[in-house]
Order: sequence, then structure tokens, then C-alpha cells
Amino acid sequence: MYTVGVRDHIMVAHSLPGEVFGPAQRLHGATYTVSAEVEREELADAGIVIDIGYLRGELRRVLGELDYSNLDEHPAFQGKRSTTEMIARHIHRELGARLPVTSGVMLTITLDESPVAWARYRAPVSRADNAT
Amino acid sequence: MYTVGVRDHIMVAHSLPGEVFGPAQRLHGATYTVSAEVEREELADAGIVIDIGYLRGELRRVLGELDYSNLDEHPAFQGKRSTTEMIARHIHRELGARLPVTSGVMLTITLDESPVAWARYRAPVSRADNAT
Amino acid sequence: MYTVGVRDHIMVAHSLPGEVFGPAQRLHGATYTVSAEVEREELADAGIVIDIGYLRGELRRVLGELDYSNLDEHPAFQGKRSTTEMIARHIHRELGARLPVTSGVMLTITLDESPVAWARYRAPVSRADNAT
Amino acid sequence: MYTVGVRDHIMVAHSLPGEVFGPAQRLHGATYTVSAEVEREELADAGIVIDIGYLRGELRRVLGELDYSNLDEHPAFQGKRSTTEMIARHIHRELGARLPVTSGVMLTITLDESPVAWARYRAPVSRADNAT
Amino acid sequence: MYTVGVRDHIMVAHSLPGEVFGPAQRLHGATYTVSAEVEREELADAGIVIDIGYLRGELRRVLGELDYSNLDEHPAFQGKRSTTEMIARHIHRELGARLPVTSGVMLTITLDESPVAWARYRAPVSRADNAT
Amino acid sequence: MYTVGVRDHIMVAHSLPGEVFGPAQRLHGATYTVSAEVEREELADAGIVIDIGYLRGELRRVLGELDYSNLDEHPAFQGKRSTTEMIARHIHRELGARLPVTSGVMLTITLDESPVAWARYRAPVSRADNAT
Repeated sequence: MYTVGVRDHIMVAHSLPGEVFGPAQRLHGATYTVSAEVEREELADAGIVIDIGYLRGELRRVLGELDYSNLDEHPAFQGKRSTTEMIARHIHRELGARLPVTSGVMLTITLDESPVAWARYRAPVSRADNAT
Repeated sequence: MYTVGVRDHIMVAHSLPGEVFGPAQRLHGATYTVSAEVEREELADAGIVIDIGYLRGELRRVLGELDYSNLDEHPAFQGKRSTTEMIARHIHRELGARLPVTSGVMLTITLDESPVAWARYRAPVSRADNAT
Repeated sequence: MYTVGVRDHIMVAHSLPGEVFGPAQRLHGATYTVSAEVEREELADAGIVIDIGYLRGELRRVLGELDYSNLDEHPAFQGKRSTTEMIARHIHRELGARLPVTSGVMLTITLDESPVAWARYRAPVSRADNAT
Repeated sequence: MYTVGVRDHIMVAHSLPGEVFGPAQRLHGATYTVSAEVEREELADAGIVIDIGYLRGELRRVLGELDYSNLDEHPAFQGKRSTTEMIARHIHRELGARLPVTSGVMLTITLDESPVAWARYRAPVSRADNAT
Repeated sequence: MYTVGVRDHIMVAHSLPGEVFGPAQRLHGATYTVSAEVEREELADAGIVIDIGYLRGELRRVLGELDYSNLDEHPAFQGKRSTTEMIARHIHRELGARLPVTSGVMLTITLDESPVAWARYRAPVSRADNAT
Repeated sequence: MYTVGVRDHIMVAHSLPGEVFGPAQRLHGATYTVSAEVEREELADAGIVIDIGYLRGELRRVLGELDYSNLDEHPAFQGKRSTTEMIARHIHRELGARLPVTSGVMLTITLDESPVAWARYRAPVSRADNAT
């Protein structure tokens, strides 16, 4: 199994309603370091999983929709909490829909929110994502 | 698959009897950076895998029993070597027993012992652990 | 010259009015990793610059006033931009005022705002700070 | 499942022919940080997956054949592109052939080529590798 | 004293003639992580040392002249060894010449060549640099 | 001013007598990541501050006297506390005595004891050190 990964980051504000979130219920913010990993059983002809430059560009495009924003007012999180898990899920859906491959490809999105906490969403790139 | 991870550290002394351990047979020590990751197929209602604050607190409680100690004299390692693998196994058992969930949850414990070496134990949180 | 350093972090929202700040004019946020370093020519009797546990505690107390907040509404930044430089200056003043030492001690505060950008404020701990 | 990992690095030159590689078609270079992870279901008698000192030594031996070289002229990459994925595959084969174990052991090789990009090859250590 | 720092990286090939360089006499390569820090006594009106976006852009422009190249054939290193120290010196000169400020400003360039080695050049931004 | 830095690590046990040290009064341990930086105004003929391979070798030799030991029983710390500051001072003295240069050279030793705490000793390499 081959994997290629790339990394970028976003700086966003948000709040997390619900007692379980304690002080994070207040409007605060985070620098999320975002890692995107693509896995395939075999390499493409050029000896690569996917073009790293292309992957970095697509990830930047997806992150550009979130960067320097207040997620409380972002269309993608209306009626949903923007927990780190949910942001990872959102980026997975958006990036998955942009990848040229539609089967047998696993995509993993990891968000580091601080030096001591992170979340991840890992799932195959599905037809549904690409149809969107 | 969703994952949440948290990180903490301990500073302990120990020795590793057995020729295979070379100079580590002598009494020495380590700062172990400890990562705990919890995985679930679906998110709980609040849009989270598990409350990060709660997970950090429980990990700290488990590590508090080891921190600033000499593992050669620690009850958990009597008659066993405190290799990095075995410490990871121990933390997995103790943390697993404290987690509220009893099935379908994978727990991974990774210990970095230096910038160039680490060990990991990964297994489902079992009924047996929670029964303890 | 001896130095001791400790590290912690905060998660805050803010906006930076002024054309020079580009997209950072919008409400967004950051995880700031905060390093505090104390320097002295000679060690105290116990063979230390300052008690690390004490320094971590005081830094946490200072950061606790900022953590999980929107700096746009924080009393410390009324009428001032909360640039990374200005936050470093603020933490330097607050932490300096809490340190027991009043002369010959240099204090450096560094804030990493992302994997590719940081700011720092470095100055002696002054009488004025301690008088506050 | 238990894992042990070790890390080392190499400094190499190479070029990547093919339009998809853009500026990397030119002769350039990289510091590759190389991680090798060995996984087994159960620990060996000494309470370890594999002796870390031994694993570091074997990885160094494999990397010694690549370090401070121009991969364009290296026998292992004649007629093949030395993409990060292909170098990971090569190190996996060479290190796998040196490991004493022949079944039930998973070996993962990860190469970080920069702070924002990496590749990985993960596969069981096979008989074929050990036969070589 | 206020400092602002930004980070980027380049991937280059080179060789270092001279017995002292051992295996690095051969054509090999490196990923250099490049940090640029600008220091000033007081902040500019906007509450900043220098616009981080501007600094990142200028550093990228300077590094763009080196990235994905073989330094043995680069005009900047004809008749000179491209040691890490000399590359830091070169980047300092090029970046210094692009900065709008001409006095009282300290510029520090640090190059990490691997997880265990780095070099740095630190000097005021001089008139001479800006005249170039 | 030019600087070259190298990094290595040691794994030691020790205890710190004195109430100020709290739980660190008990026998415990640490992985210390040790950075050694050498600064000079001008480069030597080969375009380097000092040969990195030589510096790494000498640092390893100094650290080899401490690695995998219990500092409570180490001759260098009889009658002294092995605080992180004091270990940095010790390594500075030992490494300074091995460096070929005797004037105008600044040597800085930094020890990271955990992801959140470190200490440093910085002083010129003195005649006295080299005489030892």
C-alpha cells in the first residue's frame, strides 16, 4: 500500500455550543494544521500515487474556502457544530470530490488543533463525493 | 472512521535486564511523550468521538501513577520488563478501563522515547479492560 | 548566561483592522504556542534559574486570561490591534509582573501562530512591570 | 498489535523526468527523514517487537547505500524514477530482506521530503524479500 | 526588542569539494528549511515589525532563485562552496536587499539541513545590501 | 555572525533533592535532546564555522559519558544537583575543552527535557575550559 501526504494550515474562529465543550462554548479560534493522505494499492505509471503539486493545489483550494473565516457563519456549518472531527469530515468531502480517482482510493484528513490534540477522518473516496 | 488524539508526557527511571538491551541494562531514564487515540465509526451526538477535555483528564490520571517514578519499583512492572512496548500496553489497559465505551472502539497508545525511536500498542477497548 | 524555557498554548479569535492585514481583517482565529524564557547570569542556590513548575503555573495563569476568548472584546486590546507582536508584548508585561525577580533578568516571549510564522518580544523584567 | 519505530535520514540528489514533475525535472535534492516501523501481533520473549538497536543498525546499513549519492546514477534506480514512493519501496525491500522474521510481520517505511510532503510504503515482510 | 519570523523550504543538489567534507564531497542534496527573522526595537504604526505576508512573499522570491536547482551550477556559488553557512549568507544578502528598511534592523537566516544539523547568519540589514 | 548547530540525545535517571523540586525529588528520568551551537564572527577557509561531522562526533563523545546512566552516581554531579541547567553547564565545559578554538567563539548548549520545558547555558569557550 502506497501513501502520499501533504500538509497546509488554516486560521479560523468558531464557538462550540453545548455544555460538554466547557470554555470552548465561547467564541475562540484555532490554527488547524491539515494533513491530507491519499492511499492506493499500486502506483500510477509515473511511479507516484498522485502528483504532489496537484494534491497541494487542490487542498489549498478547499482550505481557501475556510481560511481566515468565522465558521459560525460559514455555510458549511449551518446547523452543525464545527468540531475538529466535523471540519475533518467536511474537508474530506470537498477534497474527495476534486480528486480524479473514484475507486480503491483511501483519503485521510488529520487536523492538529494544538500541540496536544488532533482529530482525523478516514474513508474511501466515494462515487457520491465525486458526483457532488 | 473518526479518530481523536491527545498527547501528554511522563519522566521515569528504569532498567532493562537482558543482554539484548545493551547499555539500557543500566539504570537510566526517559521522557516518554504519550499519545492516546480513540477511533469510532460514527460520531456521538455532539459531533465528537469523545470529549477531548475528558480524554486528556483520564490520560493524565493514568500517567500520574507513573510520572516521576522508578518503574523498577512500580507495582505494575513487578516481574516484567518495562520496555516501551510494555509501558504502552499498560497505559492502554488502564486508560481503556476508564473509558465509558465498551465496544466498537479502538484505542491506540504511542510512546515516543526519543527523537528517533517509539513504540505503539493498538487494540479494541475490551469488556475485560472495563471489568477491571 | 543561563536560560530556562517553558511552553503552553492558547486558542483565540480576533480580527486585525487595516488594509495591510489582507484577509486577516476578517474575524478569524489562532492557536498560539507560547514560549516563555527567563535568563540570568548566575544560578540561584538550588542550581536553577527559576523553578520550572512555578514558571509554568504563572504562565498558565497569564494565559488563562486570554484562552478561549475573542481578543476583539478583551480589555487588554481595546483601542489596540491584537497582532502577534502585541500579544507577545502583553504576555511579557503580565508574566514579568508576576516574577519574583526585579533586576538583571531577561524575559523572552515567543508566539508561534502557525508552522510558518511567529513573533517575539524580548526585554528585561523592569521595576515598572513589577510595580503594576 | 504492537509497533516499534525508528528514524534516520539521508541527503541525496536526483531528478524526475516527466512533465508531471514540473521543476522537479531538474537536478535537485532532498533530505529524506526515513521512519521504519515493524508491527507484530505479540511481543517476543524479552517484551519487545524487535531490538531497537538492531533495527536502527540495519536501517542505517540500508540507508548507507543511498546517503550522499546522486540517485540518477544509483544502480537501484536505473530505468526507474526515484520518486519518494519508489525510494520508500526500495528501502522496504532492502530492510525487509535483512529482518530475521519471515511471516506475520508488517513493515512500514515513511519518507518525509519536506515539512509539507511525505510518502509511505506499507506491506508484510515477504518470503521473497528474505530470499533475496 | 520585537522579532517576526517566517519559514519556507528549498530542495537543492550540490557537492562540497575538500577533504573535510567527507562523503559530502560527492554530488548529493538537501531539503533546507529556511527561517527568516526580522528584529526591530519598536513596532511600526500598525503594531507590527513587518507585514508577515510581505516577508513571506519576498523570502519565496529569493528562494525561488535556488529551489529545484543544482547549486554547483548556480551563478551565486561560482568559485565558492555552497556550505549551509554560505547559503544562509547568500539568502541574507538577497532578502536584505529587498527589505524596505535600511537601518536598525537585524536579519537572521537559519537553515535546517536535517533533524540534527543547522546553520545561521545574523547581521544588520546594511546600506550596502540595499544598494545592490 | 555565523552559527552552526548539531543535535543528539541522552537517556538518564536522576533525583533532585530539595522541596522546590516537588515530585522530581523522587528518582525519575529524562530523555534530554541536546543542541550544541558554535558561533564565530567569520567563517574558516572552507566556508564553514566548524566541521559539522567533527562537532557531532565530539558532542557524542561528551554525551557518551552520560548516556544510559544514573546521574545521582555520576562523578560529575557529586555534591551538586543535576538540574537541567547544571547538565547544560557540564556539557558546555566538556565540549568546550574539546573544541580546537580558544578565543572569539561562543558555545551554546540547550537541553529539551520535555515538549514543554528546556534549559540553556551560553558562554564563550574559555582558555580555562581548554586547559582542563
